[in-house]
Amino acid sequence: MKLWSKGHFLNREVEKFTVGNDFLTDVKIAPYDIKASIAHAKMLKKTGILTAEELSKIKKELHLLLKQKIQLNVEDEDIHSYIENHLTKKLGSLGKKIHSARSRNDQVLVAIRLYSRDKMQEVKKAAAELVKIINNFKNKHSTIPLPGYTHMQKAMPSSVKLWADAFICALEDDLILLETSYSLNNQNPLGSGAGYGIPLNIDKHLTTKLLWFKKTQENPLYCQNSRGKIELATLNALNQISLTLNKIAVDIMLFTTSEFGYFYLPKEFCTGSSIMPQKQNYDVIELVRGKTAGFSKYSYEVESIIKNLPSGYNRDFQLIKEPLIRGFEDIIEMIKIMTLVFSRLKVDSAKCKKAMTSELFATEKAYKLMQKGMPFRDAYRKVAEEIKQ
Amino acid sequence: MKLWSKGHFLNREVEKFTVGNDFLTDVKIAPYDIKASIAHAKMLKKTGILTAEELSKIKKELHLLLKQKIQLNVEDEDIHSYIENHLTKKLGSLGKKIHSARSRNDQVLVAIRLYSRDKMQEVKKAAAELVKIINNFKNKHSTIPLPGYTHMQKAMPSSVKLWADAFICALEDDLILLETSYSLNNQNPLGSGAGYGIPLNIDKHLTTKLLWFKKTQENPLYCQNSRGKIELATLNALNQISLTLNKIAVDIMLFTTSEFGYFYLPKEFCTGSSIMPQKQNYDVIELVRGKTAGFSKYSYEVESIIKNLPSGYNRDFQLIKEPLIRGFEDIIEMIKIMTLVFSRLKVDSAKCKKAMTSELFATEKAYKLMQKGMPFRDAYRKVAEEIKQ
Amino acid sequence: MKLWSKGHFLNREVEKFTVGNDFLTDVKIAPYDIKASIAHAKMLKKTGILTAEELSKIKKELHLLLKQKIQLNVEDEDIHSYIENHLTKKLGSLGKKIHSARSRNDQVLVAIRLYSRDKMQEVKKAAAELVKIINNFKNKHSTIPLPGYTHMQKAMPSSVKLWADAFICALEDDLILLETSYSLNNQNPLGSGAGYGIPLNIDKHLTTKLLWFKKTQENPLYCQNSRGKIELATLNALNQISLTLNKIAVDIMLFTTSEFGYFYLPKEFCTGSSIMPQKQNYDVIELVRGKTAGFSKYSYEVESIIKNLPSGYNRDFQLIKEPLIRGFEDIIEMIKIMTLVFSRLKVDSAKCKKAMTSELFATEKAYKLMQKGMPFRDAYRKVAEEIKQ
Amino acid sequence: MKLWSKGHFLNREVEKFTVGNDFLTDVKIAPYDIKASIAHAKMLKKTGILTAEELSKIKKELHLLLKQKIQLNVEDEDIHSYIENHLTKKLGSLGKKIHSARSRNDQVLVAIRLYSRDKMQEVKKAAAELVKIINNFKNKHSTIPLPGYTHMQKAMPSSVKLWADAFICALEDDLILLETSYSLNNQNPLGSGAGYGIPLNIDKHLTTKLLWFKKTQENPLYCQNSRGKIELATLNALNQISLTLNKIAVDIMLFTTSEFGYFYLPKEFCTGSSIMPQKQNYDVIELVRGKTAGFSKYSYEVESIIKNLPSGYNRDFQLIKEPLIRGFEDIIEMIKIMTLVFSRLKVDSAKCKKAMTSELFATEKAYKLMQKGMPFRDAYRKVAEEIKQ
Repeated sequence: MKLWSKGHFLNREVEKFTVGNDFLTDVKIAPYDIKASIAHAKMLKKTGILTAEELSKIKKELHLLLKQKIQLNVEDEDIHSYIENHLTKKLGSLGKKIHSARSRNDQVLVAIRLYSRDKMQEVKKAAAELVKIINNFKNKHSTIPLPGYTHMQKAMPSSVKLWADAFICALEDDLILLETSYSLNNQNPLGSGAGYGIPLNIDKHLTTKLLWFKKTQENPLYCQNSRGKIELATLNALNQISLTLNKIAVDIMLFTTSEFGYFYLPKEFCTGSSIMPQKQNYDVIELVRGKTAGFSKYSYEVESIIKNLPSGYNRDFQLIKEPLIRGFEDIIEMIKIMTLVFSRLKVDSAKCKKAMTSELFATEKAYKLMQKGMPFRDAYRKVAEEIKQ
Repeated sequence: MKLWSKGHFLNREVEKFTVGNDFLTDVKIAPYDIKASIAHAKMLKKTGILTAEELSKIKKELHLLLKQKIQLNVEDEDIHSYIENHLTKKLGSLGKKIHSARSRNDQVLVAIRLYSRDKMQEVKKAAAELVKIINNFKNKHSTIPLPGYTHMQKAMPSSVKLWADAFICALEDDLILLETSYSLNNQNPLGSGAGYGIPLNIDKHLTTKLLWFKKTQENPLYCQNSRGKIELATLNALNQISLTLNKIAVDIMLFTTSEFGYFYLPKEFCTGSSIMPQKQNYDVIELVRGKTAGFSKYSYEVESIIKNLPSGYNRDFQLIKEPLIRGFEDIIEMIKIMTLVFSRLKVDSAKCKKAMTSELFATEKAYKLMQKGMPFRDAYRKVAEEIKQ
Repeated sequence: MKLWSKGHFLNREVEKFTVGNDFLTDVKIAPYDIKASIAHAKMLKKTGILTAEELSKIKKELHLLLKQKIQLNVEDEDIHSYIENHLTKKLGSLGKKIHSARSRNDQVLVAIRLYSRDKMQEVKKAAAELVKIINNFKNKHSTIPLPGYTHMQKAMPSSVKLWADAFICALEDDLILLETSYSLNNQNPLGSGAGYGIPLNIDKHLTTKLLWFKKTQENPLYCQNSRGKIELATLNALNQISLTLNKIAVDIMLFTTSEFGYFYLPKEFCTGSSIMPQKQNYDVIELVRGKTAGFSKYSYEVESIIKNLPSGYNRDFQLIKEPLIRGFEDIIEMIKIMTLVFSRLKVDSAKCKKAMTSELFATEKAYKLMQKGMPFRDAYRKVAEEIKQ
Repeated sequence: MKLWSKGHFLNREVEKFTVGNDFLTDVKIAPYDIKASIAHAKMLKKTGILTAEELSKIKKELHLLLKQKIQLNVEDEDIHSYIENHLTKKLGSLGKKIHSARSRNDQVLVAIRLYSRDKMQEVKKAAAELVKIINNFKNKHSTIPLPGYTHMQKAMPSSVKLWADAFICALEDDLILLETSYSLNNQNPLGSGAGYGIPLNIDKHLTTKLLWFKKTQENPLYCQNSRGKIELATLNALNQISLTLNKIAVDIMLFTTSEFGYFYLPKEFCTGSSIMPQKQNYDVIELVRGKTAGFSKYSYEVESIIKNLPSGYNRDFQLIKEPLIRGFEDIIEMIKIMTLVFSRLKVDSAKCKKAMTSELFATEKAYKLMQKGMPFRDAYRKVAEEIKQ
């Protein structure tokens, strides 16, 4: 039975449409909903709505549920209904009490915040591993030169080391942005009810403490108004990592062409063609390039959904869950695959050295003239003149 | 075994990553791949690569396969490998011949074109049904007035009829755009191979005819370069329908507020709140609003993937399938749900009439003064003056 | 004086903010507003609101205005106020009559439609010239081979001719989409007033005929609701051209690297570096790449503005003018610069020939084995085996 | 003369196209370029490239230039060329020395960082003022109730105070994100040259100190690779403020309809209709809604430009300046106009009170039953039952 049921039934097509993919996405946030429910129950006990014995029973069932693999179907509607129904089935009318002093609106908010928190830590850990592996790569090839390019033309001497290190620097900056999103997300919305508070004497600060939140989000309306905004900040931070991976992928695609030839990957990273016998393709890199190029669809979607909506809860918010979850899953998968790539990426040092042709050293030449006293702009023109001849 | 297998194996993680969701999306395009394979086999027979008997055997197996429910798994890689492997299992070395004179690159192109063609017809049909139902609604309420709004303020007299008719007009224009996308998509890419043609004497015009394409896409490189561009044109056309549905949803949300109160939906279209006993919410409309607001994520993704890529096939293209398929499924679902909504949408004619307050008739009043000889701008100011008092 | 003035004044900051860039953008649509005003005046005469003599005076002033270079400033608010004020200054109270039976809402709509129509013809003409110049390039280099790439790796033999022709095909398809947008835009909204018609006996079909529109947009509310939708369809069509230019730019950037070296541009197309004396950079191509990559910001903006808005005129629509105008100006500029580029693009035939290495012919080899009776998949594996050794 | 000039001239059309809007945008960053040039000159003196006397002359000219209103034209190309040319004109061959040990690539980077830093402080200040004014509004109307909405339906009792306070909370969170972008941007790229360092013994840390940067961006390639990424982070932060303003605008538009009627603005904030005498429109609010809805076009553009580009400087980066500058200017303008709006926004307390109808108190009623011992879900159904009757 649905939490809001009042005896009439929903049109079947409408039900299917409104449930949407919730029965799939909610499986991912289920453990967080259960954990938040345990904290909520403890708060209900403290404020006298549950007795110690009631709390103990509810806790026991919720801990058991945490260990189960939950499968939702369309009829369950969402994880929030599922949990209350499960408790009612097990504990009778006591189960119905779990929803005292909360709404599905703050329930889903708190579950998503906890989910995001965990996932951001996972991203951070995966990114740290990638940094480590790029660092190994950098040190292993620390003496190999590489042409430096501007405008896709040979510019000045660079090195494999400098190239790889640039991505470490990028990831470090990306993690600073993630850190801020983490802290923005780390606010407790539980107790905000439907967006206008709970007309009871509740203790929001207790659940803040129990769930390790950094602060309580005090304005209940802002709890709702921040829906989507916080997810957007998170996805924007993930997108910065995605952009870093995108550049790595673009560079590898260019440097593994037969024309450049600086890098290659072992055969077990290559796929072939169904028609051309000779082909060794780096599909894995192309797919990182394509997925990172498209990654901002997630923030695009979230933002499109929340714009031009009035204050307070709107059901449109339900649609934010999927892009958030898929965004986390995609970025984690891509960081890991890129870590694997860097652990096996090979450098053809002979080709790199051969590519260090004289025009790369023109700037150095001009600077030498300058050090002998010629103004830089004149030295520049003199060297340019020599090259033309 | 993969079509491009040359004896070494792909790294497990790389395999999983490169296959991605293909094993899910490809199930949707499977029937189209099979139909195109039958046409291709007929062409191979005509050009002497298959005998009549061989063709007959292949056709039989493919027709059987068409009736089966295909389930792919990661190991199958994609539907193209699956079909060839299936034929080889059934027909021995004859099965291997099906891939003569084609590449997976043109194979996937032709399957997607056929899939899109079918889906666009489905969209068109669903939209026609929606037009019909809006028309019924319009006729049923043809005498009920409605305030006309500009800047969200009462402006001039309007009617339920005018309001509903505006969406019929919008859908008619939307279908013109769809028609063009249909025709753009209706080009046969089969025979373009990997993008550089087939070094054999093949007959592309035969498959064009067999598969009912309107024309053959002659330049094989353009076949590849049009990948994504054609899907984008299609999704842009679907997005116009989505924008029409978005406006319907926004209007219904506004007109069903208790403050406006012009429209309502029967109870079986309403969901409730888990905390507020009185609530009757139109979640179904909100979700149409949210999904239509976010719908352009599909064209956004496709476009992001194809930009800044060089000519010819790039594996990034694989990622275009999912947004295309999801775009079709979403729009069809939403058109249908909106048809259901319009079939049950109620008008509160008393509230509509009561809302026809005097300021709505100010313009008419000014025009009457004008018809008596006053220049319009003066009449306008006179009426404005009267209202102020 | 503003058209809507009723004796009080607008807060200065509010005025500046609401006028925005209108005084700049409106200069571009001024001639179209004047032309539509002439047609409107003729209609007013036919319906008896103006006398023949009055029409003659108004026509004369408007024709004079058409020849002037109009400069708007913030106080003029927009071109619509400017025209009415101008007529009133010249013709006294007769000037005030021009606004009879129309609203700024339909006035701006009709002006934009006429503007778009002209610009689309300009785009079409520029694109036709580009096709002609690419065709010259193609014919001039019709015998030069070029490696064909898939996955950015050498795949099969291609040619400069095939490469260039692929863009001609793309542009031809792009123009089909433009044609449909043209026809969608070619509907007369004049007479729809503020979105709820004009409470007078007017003749919309007369202005349709006078302004060469293909049809009258009959539902006045849909006239408003189509605002943005039609501009979006137009910008989406332009974006397809932009995507074609993007791919040309990406290919040229790759093929002019010293590593590929197939193409080059004469010195007067190259810019240099402020620090590196040797550099010859193709900034012009990079800027086409960047501008085409970002071009869809225009459709993105238009779509973002119109989503989640209720039916009828909303002032937000004013913001649609700028992206439309800038979209037209950008695409025309880019088509022209690309025409110039193709007229001077050089092919290094020696480098192209040298790049036609043996792996490009592996598929052909497999097909030869197939023609001798070996199933294609076996031939493929045999050739692959030989390459490995 | 251009910095990179080597005696040949650029094709006129190419020159016009490549300069683009630089001569307009660069005026905005000119003061920052000059300040960075002064710091750079001091560094050149310290490392022995300039004498104390030379530095003194250069400093004097640059300080004079700082006080002038710079006008660029197409021939000047950009501000970087302009400054060097200006110094050369004034100081002869000494002027040419200013470009020693730097490239336009790091020069433009440092100027944009300094510009952004200033603008972010301006945004912060403007936002603080808005918070203050909302706070005044909140306190002034602290006792007026307001219906709280969910799903756009009346839900539970809220208040003007809660509503206004929610935006203060939002802005406080937005400023946290801005703070991080500020710190990300606060890195010194000067000394990175064209992206591969300067082959001289320079002192990057000196300019870091002189220009008050928080840290030196050590990897010169990352300086280039962070181009666009840092601007994107900044624009994403500004976009969060924009989303907050969007929601304020949407709420005000709804609450000022005659149907809701909770708020209104004085006449000098209202514009009228050219056809309807009675209209008082809140165009200023609609334009904030429309501009905030479209604001993310700026981040969209920046991201589109940098995706799928290889490492190192690419000229496409030039196009990032305009969306960044326009983004700052738009957001500052909108914050200020919203501050003005809040300073004059009126509350119709009679209408607010009248709107506090009984259904808003249903939840409270259920909670009262619960406090008497009924499980919440049962109390909920009992109250719902009573309402139905």
